[in-house]
Amino acid sequence: MSEPVTDHRPGADGTPRKVCVVVTARPSYSRIKTALRAIADHPDLELQFVVAASALLDRYGKVFEEIRNDGFVPDAEVFMVLEGENPVSMAKTTGIGLMELSTVFANLRPDVVVTVADRYETIATAIAAAYMNIPLVHVQGGEITGSIDEKVRHAITKLADVHLVSTDQAAEYVRRMGERPDSIIVTGCPSVDLAAEVADDRARDFDPFTKYGGVGDLVLLDDGYIVVMQHPVTTEYEASRAHVEETLHAVADLGMPVLWFWPNVDAGADGTSKGIRAFREFDDASHMHFFKNMAPTDFLRLIANCACLVGNSSVGIRESAYLGVPVVNIGTRQHGRERGANVLDTEYDRSLIRAAIEKQLGHGTYAADHLYGDGLAGPRVAQAIAEMPLTVVKRLDYHGG
Amino acid sequence: MSEPVTDHRPGADGTPRKVCVVVTARPSYSRIKTALRAIADHPDLELQFVVAASALLDRYGKVFEEIRNDGFVPDAEVFMVLEGENPVSMAKTTGIGLMELSTVFANLRPDVVVTVADRYETIATAIAAAYMNIPLVHVQGGEITGSIDEKVRHAITKLADVHLVSTDQAAEYVRRMGERPDSIIVTGCPSVDLAAEVADDRARDFDPFTKYGGVGDLVLLDDGYIVVMQHPVTTEYEASRAHVEETLHAVADLGMPVLWFWPNVDAGADGTSKGIRAFREFDDASHMHFFKNMAPTDFLRLIANCACLVGNSSVGIRESAYLGVPVVNIGTRQHGRERGANVLDTEYDRSLIRAAIEKQLGHGTYAADHLYGDGLAGPRVAQAIAEMPLTVVKRLDYHGG
Amino acid sequence: MSEPVTDHRPGADGTPRKVCVVVTARPSYSRIKTALRAIADHPDLELQFVVAASALLDRYGKVFEEIRNDGFVPDAEVFMVLEGENPVSMAKTTGIGLMELSTVFANLRPDVVVTVADRYETIATAIAAAYMNIPLVHVQGGEITGSIDEKVRHAITKLADVHLVSTDQAAEYVRRMGERPDSIIVTGCPSVDLAAEVADDRARDFDPFTKYGGVGDLVLLDDGYIVVMQHPVTTEYEASRAHVEETLHAVADLGMPVLWFWPNVDAGADGTSKGIRAFREFDDASHMHFFKNMAPTDFLRLIANCACLVGNSSVGIRESAYLGVPVVNIGTRQHGRERGANVLDTEYDRSLIRAAIEKQLGHGTYAADHLYGDGLAGPRVAQAIAEMPLTVVKRLDYHGG
Amino acid sequence: MSEPVTDHRPGADGTPRKVCVVVTARPSYSRIKTALRAIADHPDLELQFVVAASALLDRYGKVFEEIRNDGFVPDAEVFMVLEGENPVSMAKTTGIGLMELSTVFANLRPDVVVTVADRYETIATAIAAAYMNIPLVHVQGGEITGSIDEKVRHAITKLADVHLVSTDQAAEYVRRMGERPDSIIVTGCPSVDLAAEVADDRARDFDPFTKYGGVGDLVLLDDGYIVVMQHPVTTEYEASRAHVEETLHAVADLGMPVLWFWPNVDAGADGTSKGIRAFREFDDASHMHFFKNMAPTDFLRLIANCACLVGNSSVGIRESAYLGVPVVNIGTRQHGRERGANVLDTEYDRSLIRAAIEKQLGHGTYAADHLYGDGLAGPRVAQAIAEMPLTVVKRLDYHGG
Repeated sequence: MSEPVTDHRPGADGTPRKVCVVVTARPSYSRIKTALRAIADHPDLELQFVVAASALLDRYGKVFEEIRNDGFVPDAEVFMVLEGENPVSMAKTTGIGLMELSTVFANLRPDVVVTVADRYETIATAIAAAYMNIPLVHVQGGEITGSIDEKVRHAITKLADVHLVSTDQAAEYVRRMGERPDSIIVTGCPSVDLAAEVADDRARDFDPFTKYGGVGDLVLLDDGYIVVMQHPVTTEYEASRAHVEETLHAVADLGMPVLWFWPNVDAGADGTSKGIRAFREFDDASHMHFFKNMAPTDFLRLIANCACLVGNSSVGIRESAYLGVPVVNIGTRQHGRERGANVLDTEYDRSLIRAAIEKQLGHGTYAADHLYGDGLAGPRVAQAIAEMPLTVVKRLDYHGG
Repeated sequence: MSEPVTDHRPGADGTPRKVCVVVTARPSYSRIKTALRAIADHPDLELQFVVAASALLDRYGKVFEEIRNDGFVPDAEVFMVLEGENPVSMAKTTGIGLMELSTVFANLRPDVVVTVADRYETIATAIAAAYMNIPLVHVQGGEITGSIDEKVRHAITKLADVHLVSTDQAAEYVRRMGERPDSIIVTGCPSVDLAAEVADDRARDFDPFTKYGGVGDLVLLDDGYIVVMQHPVTTEYEASRAHVEETLHAVADLGMPVLWFWPNVDAGADGTSKGIRAFREFDDASHMHFFKNMAPTDFLRLIANCACLVGNSSVGIRESAYLGVPVVNIGTRQHGRERGANVLDTEYDRSLIRAAIEKQLGHGTYAADHLYGDGLAGPRVAQAIAEMPLTVVKRLDYHGG
Repeated sequence: MSEPVTDHRPGADGTPRKVCVVVTARPSYSRIKTALRAIADHPDLELQFVVAASALLDRYGKVFEEIRNDGFVPDAEVFMVLEGENPVSMAKTTGIGLMELSTVFANLRPDVVVTVADRYETIATAIAAAYMNIPLVHVQGGEITGSIDEKVRHAITKLADVHLVSTDQAAEYVRRMGERPDSIIVTGCPSVDLAAEVADDRARDFDPFTKYGGVGDLVLLDDGYIVVMQHPVTTEYEASRAHVEETLHAVADLGMPVLWFWPNVDAGADGTSKGIRAFREFDDASHMHFFKNMAPTDFLRLIANCACLVGNSSVGIRESAYLGVPVVNIGTRQHGRERGANVLDTEYDRSLIRAAIEKQLGHGTYAADHLYGDGLAGPRVAQAIAEMPLTVVKRLDYHGG
Repeated sequence: MSEPVTDHRPGADGTPRKVCVVVTARPSYSRIKTALRAIADHPDLELQFVVAASALLDRYGKVFEEIRNDGFVPDAEVFMVLEGENPVSMAKTTGIGLMELSTVFANLRPDVVVTVADRYETIATAIAAAYMNIPLVHVQGGEITGSIDEKVRHAITKLADVHLVSTDQAAEYVRRMGERPDSIIVTGCPSVDLAAEVADDRARDFDPFTKYGGVGDLVLLDDGYIVVMQHPVTTEYEASRAHVEETLHAVADLGMPVLWFWPNVDAGADGTSKGIRAFREFDDASHMHFFKNMAPTDFLRLIANCACLVGNSSVGIRESAYLGVPVVNIGTRQHGRERGANVLDTEYDRSLIRAAIEKQLGHGTYAADHLYGDGLAGPRVAQAIAEMPLTVVKRLDYHGG
């Protein structure tokens, strides 16, 4: 049957579409940055940029300076994180976000809202847009992982009007969930765009200790180093301290220089942080350095040159595929996500982690894999938003039952 | 692959599962009532009953007295409706609900949360349960309609762990959205259970004017009457007053006795209410009577004996199929939902509505249709909850991409 | 000791002070209207106008059209009323208001915030300003009444930096509460400014039924009529229906034409409204007409020409003193407030109310009394705000213990 | 005039009064602890204990274990701190608290609510109780300080029904603010009760490093040590990092052992914390040890034995008066508060701070001063609550204008 469509594509009247992108965390900013740039530069689009949740908080690595350095000026800042870092505060944080973001959308009056990926609080962006009858674009739907993100991601798919996905398989999955084929576009993942830039010239052109401070030893980076990035897994939040301790001991035992990045805000973040702090006080963290935030390009340059990336970050799955970096992926967080040959999975066990790292050190760099994109996702995202029909009415698209 | 499952089914220790059912509106109570009874009576289950949102508000037909008359004692009441009845207040209401319901779940500590159907504010129940790692049962997923409910219903499916659906087609659709076959059970719709009771003995055994008051004429019910129930449609909320005026004129012109039921709280409810109030002041509503709330059984008894049900309520689709009542369904609200032969669809146009009613009056009663259930859904819901695995970890269930 | 003062008075740089006035209800708008005009017209001030709470809600008499007709354009609208009309929803409404108004102040960045009178939700304005270090002006502090307003009013005094009061006694009371003498200015009440305009030419120059609609009989206004305005009293909220019934019967028995104005949103408003609705359905309201909202000047013109004003509105205390209108004041709501000779107090009892009205009808119009102002409060308020020091640090001002 | 009074004092029916005490921060717990004990032990009272805000947060020194060790079981926990630590998040935190605490009071149905002192978020407790018509007891009103607390404290006085104050001067000030004499009782400050216990036997009977961990050097405590406790001042929140640096340098230069306690959650807390962390990384903190939380008695034992207490904590004003401990009080936070001879005030300047400490070291211990209590405040608080009339109606109590 025919769908009601209200099409406000610019042309007749020449007004650019107002596109409101909501970023709620440091990694989401990296993930959407090239698309933000492409939207801002597109003649038919006007960028409205909202910075929210942990992206505003000092203790999770304030992404704010980096945003300013990149030339973006936020149209709104939304404080919404309720302290507690437990399941109740996650739910309440999302409720507060819903109250706050609906005010932001009422003020900015966007033609389109863009939400990124699958962090728990992003469902507030999706619901606010859906309930306010603003067409919703979801970037990075259709993927499969192993935590609360899995429920959030697919729920957002069902609230979204347009799906800009990273891989062919993701497109197929979104389609199978009953979304109309013409609402799904494979753009690749914008985070890989940055990796592509770095891959062309991998030279580390900055001193991370001078530029970003951080705490811990000033380790040598010339003879091989490990990067660690480990987030708490929400359905296992009480175990997060125990989990991080396994990784801490594994890399401590290896004796190689380690650059460690603090986790995002999440239920259990405090467990992870506490584990790290306790290790620094009472164990030997003598060849480790700990960073909070870093400009994505600098971060990727450190990844591109590292001997092995350890932890459970999606950077190990996406950007590292393009860069060919050896990855040891720990635990369930990336469970089910498509991955290249560069990823070796292991459990929360210090000896297994150490063995996996040693195996990757023995292998060395892998060939580049374009699984998550070819480096041109940002402009594709902008173009898709400029061309999409501005409709908010949809229906499960199955024929014949 | 194997899923992590924590199974707390009673037996070993004999503790009943605590099952928290959240009801947010008058029609949802009717829809889940036989299941509430079956849960309360099940030896392995303990009912926790939460009454929230418009179900607590006098001006939308307080369902509270009816609940008490049925012998239920709510474990919590949740005021969460932000006044305004516009898209922004819908979003904020949902945010407030999320903040409030997470407190309720933290206090009651249920083993299972049950959410009913697809009203916009019910996504707060689903998110609170999902983020607090409480297994979520969704009753009445997998159906297809034409409004914001469509997005809400399927998003809740993706947040839910177990799906108790009304029809085979709904089961198939939930399956196709990537839910595991063993998480989907066709119970039928509990609302049809009440219709089945009424169908066995249709005699109208009460005087609605004495028992429920309401306003308007005390019309005669013995020679045929029409029942109207028209809700605002949220994506068209500004038009709700115009829409209700078409129906008001259509039934006024017919001249038959009319029993009219006020709408639920929704964006636009004020438009609908205002249209009705203005009609009563300035037009001729001389053979109409207006009710707010009514016990579901009494309401169904009035439906079972009416000449035609007019409007856009799901009662016209579900219960009326079982009862064989002729229905004129107006506009897009029930769009896409499976329906029996008793339903005649029409547009928001007084002459078309009147013509459709006259056609149904000419036809008279239809044969019973078990499309939405055979009258035993309530006990099936309770049994399914008693037997389900208590897991909160799930993953999109597609094989081979 | 000397107080830290940051003085941004315009002059050097010529930037006008941004003055944010928050209005949360219909009567507050009337009460502050001439001050709004004077602020907007003042060369050293820039008006920021926030409309919030029940002032936005249709069912309490939308003040919005009137505001537009007066030429004001709100800078923000704040939906904050949680439905329920009970003590819990009053507290939560205030909490929501605090969350919402802090966003508004963060966006508008006012130099001064102005809050009016003592409705329960206005403490949200006061706290948001105080906690955000924005100098707070309180209009109409220092008065004495008999309900929750009493606690709210004086708590706001303790949060405010400058006090613009209506009477000399109010100034004295604010002083005795420990506020510095130079922070207290007797401006008179801006609501009396409108009464002064009307007093100069009392002719009723409009037909209220044509202009404002409303419901009920089209009564004759030429041979004397009564105006009723009765609000629920929050500490007695369950009794509000019983209270209003006494008044309804009193004026029904009298048999004179009655113009009745619906109450504001408050805990119990539903009781009052329900009492009125039930009376209209089941009793004889044949010589009564019911209005929701009316432009303040038109409203005052009806008051100025009425035979007696009945109820518990502050209009009976303030504007009616200037106008010399006979007033029957019922119950505790205005308890303790200074009043002129035109006010006769009585209890919630139909025979006492009727007797008091008859006594006032026998007396007729009173002499004008400038107790609450001389008609020039608005410009005085604006000038005071233009000249005040912009400080937020204060201390209880008592010497010697 | 006579006040409406509803008196539910136990006796006739023998039901104890339910007394709900809300504690929102670590220091408030210490301050009210002996009263909690006395309420729990009183035959006519039943304690309801609510732990809220930063008292629940790990990073501000979880008071939870201590509460459990003291034998109290909280009846509710309220997460309400919105991350951000800026003026907007302070206002929103208070709004969230109001929403949450009204739910708690609706569930617990206390006969009396008790709020302690003057932290910004405690106004949420006061408003929730006042709007829900629950008699409110304010402990520690009537004092004078120099920050946002000053506004909060006196606003709570105007919302409270009974005032249990620490000093005769506080009683006089509350009286002068218009509170009825019979609603004001001088109980002394319950925090001094603990000091009185410690004063009787000052021996340090535990090793703080073993018992409480913390970070930094394990300094010697036998030859004299300094204790530092410095909180951010909210109206100067951007300066909090600069302020703490002055103190850090002052005590570092002295070279004596230092026990430093982290600040509470407040706007600017992050500035203070960051200042301390940076000092530990980049400066010489070699003779300092940093603690988060400590049982009040242990904390007071360390104070009782220290050579000098430095910072801006009220412990320096209250408990230290009783203990005769020399205090260097920095900046405006305790401005205006009554103090004993043991307190030497100074500015945020490292050399002035150092000079003041040296002067106090030269003086040594002072005589005990009962200014803030004689050690029996807790039982007096309980008895006052058992005997107070349960009324919520009050009026400014001035006679003759």
